[in-house]
Amino acid sequence: MIKANFLSGTEVHRSRTALWGTGTALFPYPVQKLAKGRFKMAKIAVILEDMFEDSEYTEPVKAFREAGHETVNVGLEEAKEVKGKKEGTPATIDRALGQVNSGDYDALLIPGGYSPDKLRAHESPIEFVKGFMDEGKPVFSICHGAQLLISADALKGKKATGWKSIKQDIKNAGAEYLDREVVEDGNLVSSRQPQDLPAFIKASLSKL
Amino acid sequence: MIKANFLSGTEVHRSRTALWGTGTALFPYPVQKLAKGRFKMAKIAVILEDMFEDSEYTEPVKAFREAGHETVNVGLEEAKEVKGKKEGTPATIDRALGQVNSGDYDALLIPGGYSPDKLRAHESPIEFVKGFMDEGKPVFSICHGAQLLISADALKGKKATGWKSIKQDIKNAGAEYLDREVVEDGNLVSSRQPQDLPAFIKASLSKL
Repeated sequence: MIKANFLSGTEVHRSRTALWGTGTALFPYPVQKLAKGRFKMAKIAVILEDMFEDSEYTEPVKAFREAGHETVNVGLEEAKEVKGKKEGTPATIDRALGQVNSGDYDALLIPGGYSPDKLRAHESPIEFVKGFMDEGKPVFSICHGAQLLISADALKGKKATGWKSIKQDIKNAGAEYLDREVVEDGNLVSSRQPQDLPAFIKASLSKL
Repeated sequence: MIKANFLSGTEVHRSRTALWGTGTALFPYPVQKLAKGRFKMAKIAVILEDMFEDSEYTEPVKAFREAGHETVNVGLEEAKEVKGKKEGTPATIDRALGQVNSGDYDALLIPGGYSPDKLRAHESPIEFVKGFMDEGKPVFSICHGAQLLISADALKGKKATGWKSIKQDIKNAGAEYLDREVVEDGNLVSSRQPQDLPAFIKASLSKL
């Protein structure tokens, strides 16, 4: 067993990486206490609407929080309860998109399902996502998440992946589509589907 | 009132057009009897999966049948009952995509909703749609229907429309996106949303 009080900041990071490498969704320690004062906590926006892919919201958010980061659900309407596509997981929108901008956050998570399609029928989510990409802040996109990046015209020249149904859209947007569990290109981390979550979460945490 | 026995084939066509122009979803006469032997009945494939936009299936199919045409539901699995997104409208898949090809039909209807996204995660629906476009047969695409045309790489140089969330995808596919209730370009008829159905049906019938 690793003893918390023997760890330097670097070692904390390495141990987290090693633990994630096993594909487990839980850390053995409350890392936010373990690492207090040793790494910067990030404020992560999670952009959501109805019919998000349940696990692509719940698992990364759980992992980010367990690692000591803060997550804030942003969406079209403040206080609205949106629901997951398969299991009906409820999620409350903390802040409406009209009231926030990318400058308020350190990173962005875009869960998949049909939430991205619903969001990109409006201008404010597209502008919000574009802000993170323009500023080079970490953006974590899984499954249909890349649809928002396409509408933000933010994939030109990037390596990226996403759910197979949108492969042609990702290519047509000027990206190089790679059929891999996780693709990292600069600030952008992308994955294809729920099965890729362990690799997606590991790569996303490494950007924070 | 128009008397059926006074109508020539051409007049039948004109009267249908005029009646559709009012936006009504019903003809005052059973046109298949009225026009018996006077115009060619078309066999129209309707490509469907779960979560189709209910009215984008029911209304065109009703109109096509009332005009004397035949419709056949094609999908991933024969005899599967697929359901509409909003109202749960049931539709039975008559023929599986692996057993049919575009040569078996005169025209294709692609209702929207999330059905096109589900279909284009597979190769057979993409190939099926591509066949109609390659052969220049009438293709009627509404809402998210254009997603299948994008995956079939069939929109280059075409004028087209679709649901606003996929506007950028349609443009990136090489089409000229027009924000109109119905866009006609050669064999292709496309519309944006359920509200466009009267214009969509009218234009589609005129291609049969």
